[in-house]
Amino acid sequence: MRHWLSMGDYDPAELAALVRDACALKSGRSSAQDAIGDRILTMVFFNPSLRTRTSFESAMLRFGGHAICLNVGGDAWKLEHRDGVVMDGDFAEHVREASPVLSRYGDLLAVRTFARLHDAREDAQDAVIRSFAQYATVPLINMESAVEHPCQGLADWMTVQEKLGDPRGKRFVLSWAPHVKPLPMAVPHSAILAAAGAGMHVTIAHPPGYDLNAGVLDRVSAWCADAGTQVDVTTEQRAVCRDADVLYVKSWGATQHYNDAPAQTESFARHSDWTVGTDHLGRNALLMHCLPVRRNVVITDAALDDTRCVVVDQAENRLWTQAAIIQRLLNG
Amino acid sequence: MRHWLSMGDYDPAELAALVRDACALKSGRSSAQDAIGDRILTMVFFNPSLRTRTSFESAMLRFGGHAICLNVGGDAWKLEHRDGVVMDGDFAEHVREASPVLSRYGDLLAVRTFARLHDAREDAQDAVIRSFAQYATVPLINMESAVEHPCQGLADWMTVQEKLGDPRGKRFVLSWAPHVKPLPMAVPHSAILAAAGAGMHVTIAHPPGYDLNAGVLDRVSAWCADAGTQVDVTTEQRAVCRDADVLYVKSWGATQHYNDAPAQTESFARHSDWTVGTDHLGRNALLMHCLPVRRNVVITDAALDDTRCVVVDQAENRLWTQAAIIQRLLNG
Amino acid sequence: MRHWLSMGDYDPAELAALVRDACALKSGRSSAQDAIGDRILTMVFFNPSLRTRTSFESAMLRFGGHAICLNVGGDAWKLEHRDGVVMDGDFAEHVREASPVLSRYGDLLAVRTFARLHDAREDAQDAVIRSFAQYATVPLINMESAVEHPCQGLADWMTVQEKLGDPRGKRFVLSWAPHVKPLPMAVPHSAILAAAGAGMHVTIAHPPGYDLNAGVLDRVSAWCADAGTQVDVTTEQRAVCRDADVLYVKSWGATQHYNDAPAQTESFARHSDWTVGTDHLGRNALLMHCLPVRRNVVITDAALDDTRCVVVDQAENRLWTQAAIIQRLLNG
Repeated sequence: MRHWLSMGDYDPAELAALVRDACALKSGRSSAQDAIGDRILTMVFFNPSLRTRTSFESAMLRFGGHAICLNVGGDAWKLEHRDGVVMDGDFAEHVREASPVLSRYGDLLAVRTFARLHDAREDAQDAVIRSFAQYATVPLINMESAVEHPCQGLADWMTVQEKLGDPRGKRFVLSWAPHVKPLPMAVPHSAILAAAGAGMHVTIAHPPGYDLNAGVLDRVSAWCADAGTQVDVTTEQRAVCRDADVLYVKSWGATQHYNDAPAQTESFARHSDWTVGTDHLGRNALLMHCLPVRRNVVITDAALDDTRCVVVDQAENRLWTQAAIIQRLLNG
Repeated sequence: MRHWLSMGDYDPAELAALVRDACALKSGRSSAQDAIGDRILTMVFFNPSLRTRTSFESAMLRFGGHAICLNVGGDAWKLEHRDGVVMDGDFAEHVREASPVLSRYGDLLAVRTFARLHDAREDAQDAVIRSFAQYATVPLINMESAVEHPCQGLADWMTVQEKLGDPRGKRFVLSWAPHVKPLPMAVPHSAILAAAGAGMHVTIAHPPGYDLNAGVLDRVSAWCADAGTQVDVTTEQRAVCRDADVLYVKSWGATQHYNDAPAQTESFARHSDWTVGTDHLGRNALLMHCLPVRRNVVITDAALDDTRCVVVDQAENRLWTQAAIIQRLLNG
Repeated sequence: MRHWLSMGDYDPAELAALVRDACALKSGRSSAQDAIGDRILTMVFFNPSLRTRTSFESAMLRFGGHAICLNVGGDAWKLEHRDGVVMDGDFAEHVREASPVLSRYGDLLAVRTFARLHDAREDAQDAVIRSFAQYATVPLINMESAVEHPCQGLADWMTVQEKLGDPRGKRFVLSWAPHVKPLPMAVPHSAILAAAGAGMHVTIAHPPGYDLNAGVLDRVSAWCADAGTQVDVTTEQRAVCRDADVLYVKSWGATQHYNDAPAQTESFARHSDWTVGTDHLGRNALLMHCLPVRRNVVITDAALDDTRCVVVDQAENRLWTQAAIIQRLLNG
């Protein structure tokens, strides 16, 4: 039994096959009814969701399956995942019970559990989703964990391929952007994994101190090496954006500012010129973002309303790539 | 592509046809399976709901369709709808993204977004639902907006027709009632639009200062003129209630008291004799209310438990009229 | 029309038949498709749920039915159930409207409404679920009320029978355990009703002052008398646990400490040696708990991870017993 926890658990050829499956489902050339029909997906949300929940429900429903959605909330109800703890605090249930129990009610389990952004080392362990995987008795899907958002990554890959054709050798630039609060790194991690897996040159632009997870960067480097492409990390945004075939914009917080909101806010203000506008965009470039996006903070109105912006297509492709992932997991 | 945003977007003959369709669905003489089967309705609730959510889900499910329900909550998560704003506040996403994205996941979109009751002019613009409509790429349903609750209005029309036969020429009285807090005007607006559209004489009774939306009143007058019926607005409740064929009771807040809770509370107390009881009801009158209703504040126990009270039938008819609306929207 | 409110509304032979039906559904020897297919269950949760909601949805979905789930929340929205009240407080709607309205949208209604733990006499009346039953026009299911959790009880009965074969004459011990806050008695009540109904000897061990509901104890005594088995209540835990065929562990609050949190906390601390470990368990005993369970507070890690622990099977059996209950209610 395989899970869908990390793009790194699959090799690029398998990921490419999933993208092909997703395109076939979207075009109607194939159906996932045989795999998904009458099957039940149980989704557990520790954090809010608009696109993820809706696209997963839609993926199940349109191929004859069903989805059960549990919003366990942030503060309302908490699951313990550490071993050996005396559970006399806020945590009413342990993943050792919750994961196998939920496995009995459906055919697939999916979990969303964001990074806490208190301790970079803790987040890097991705302990909650890993604990669910350890005790699940059905395939488990990562709907965004502390380290990765692999469903988003695969949808991004599909979108590039739809718009640009074969992505190999194309230039993918991930640009950091300012925000009003620190955000997790799961999306940028999955975006660069997808770009590397798809065979693109990968450039990562962020201000000093905004380094991404070292393990993810190592995997990106390895995949780029296999594909014969380059990886670059730079603190100069403007110099690299204009040459991009794909400009992927995303904000995230600096690990050094975790638990120091004023320092993070000051850093956002100092880098307010990183807000992406139309002048960052090459003539035929794609502008990408995972959504939700704060207009005129992360990306300007003009850029988001430009025909080069494909954010709605990215969001739609969540549906088709997730259907392909589910089909794959259910087929074994 | 047509939306279902306002009763005024349809002419009375079209609304009457929808009521006929709803009656046929309720009786089992027709089915909406062809239109609704395998289709997905995505519902977005900015405000709580008991009847609306359940009746929409039921309408989809019983004709072979599916419903996805997003409770985006009041404070939890907010959508910006204004153009050109720098989104550095509480609003994490813009309707320009949310509406087209949600349009991709299903076949129909439905939104509930109450009046804020801070600024009557702002509420009258109904900007949130209008913004969703502007960017939706599938038919959009109003599940109660700042100005109207057209699903409730159509259910009310159907209920009158079920109970009294042809409503033309019957006397419809909308009576204001006291409450413990100011409520929006969407339901009274839709109730009088439905009554006017159905060809009834319309009398509106409320204390001084509780005027309804001028645009809605204009439309009601125009429809009554077309039907050859009367419209009256009065501040005398008792004089008009006893002659009503239909007594529709509803509380709403006074625009002059928006942002002045003590003044509103004092006004409710001063008009506590507007609470409707059995002595307000004519012998063969219908007593109507959209629910939820606060017993012995808005309407007395005796009146609500009277056989002339049809509030549960009104609520049931939400299901059938909504199925008729959905069928119509999906059929083109 | 029958409801499913209390195990005591059914006689033990009927309950045993439901357990047999549930086993047949689990094994695939029979299907509930004829009864459940295309039917709609409307669930109303006044309190949070993980297992109950998911297992009910799964029960409906896997036999072709549908479930609608309303989380009315704790503070968000409240229903009045008392007669004759002037509803000028927090309660926006009365059960007299909510129950018949929700009855119109689906084929079955289910309600979860926990004990308030403020007044033992009030809790013992189980007024909210009884009020729903009074006004419902479709069969009503108790998903845990102030006094009972009969779905859990039936799942427990099924689990014992699955693991031990014929339960008659076996020794069932319910042991109280400490916790971090007072919990309702609905689960222990249903556990001993199930044990008595299944023909087991019933021993209840708790510290002084933790007496269960007298009416439930009377019914347990009556059923045990009919079956020719013993009922014992003791304040000595260790002496009875080791001889149990089934050791059912559960914490609950002392009625004398309602509204006195420090006294309850002190009592938990004074009885911390009631935490159940492997040394409480006989060699071939079953260890049971309804979940969620706080590890190393209620039961130790070693005991929960022991092969004699069947808590995940209990949780799974919720699904099958609930399907059997629904089938029975829909068939008449």
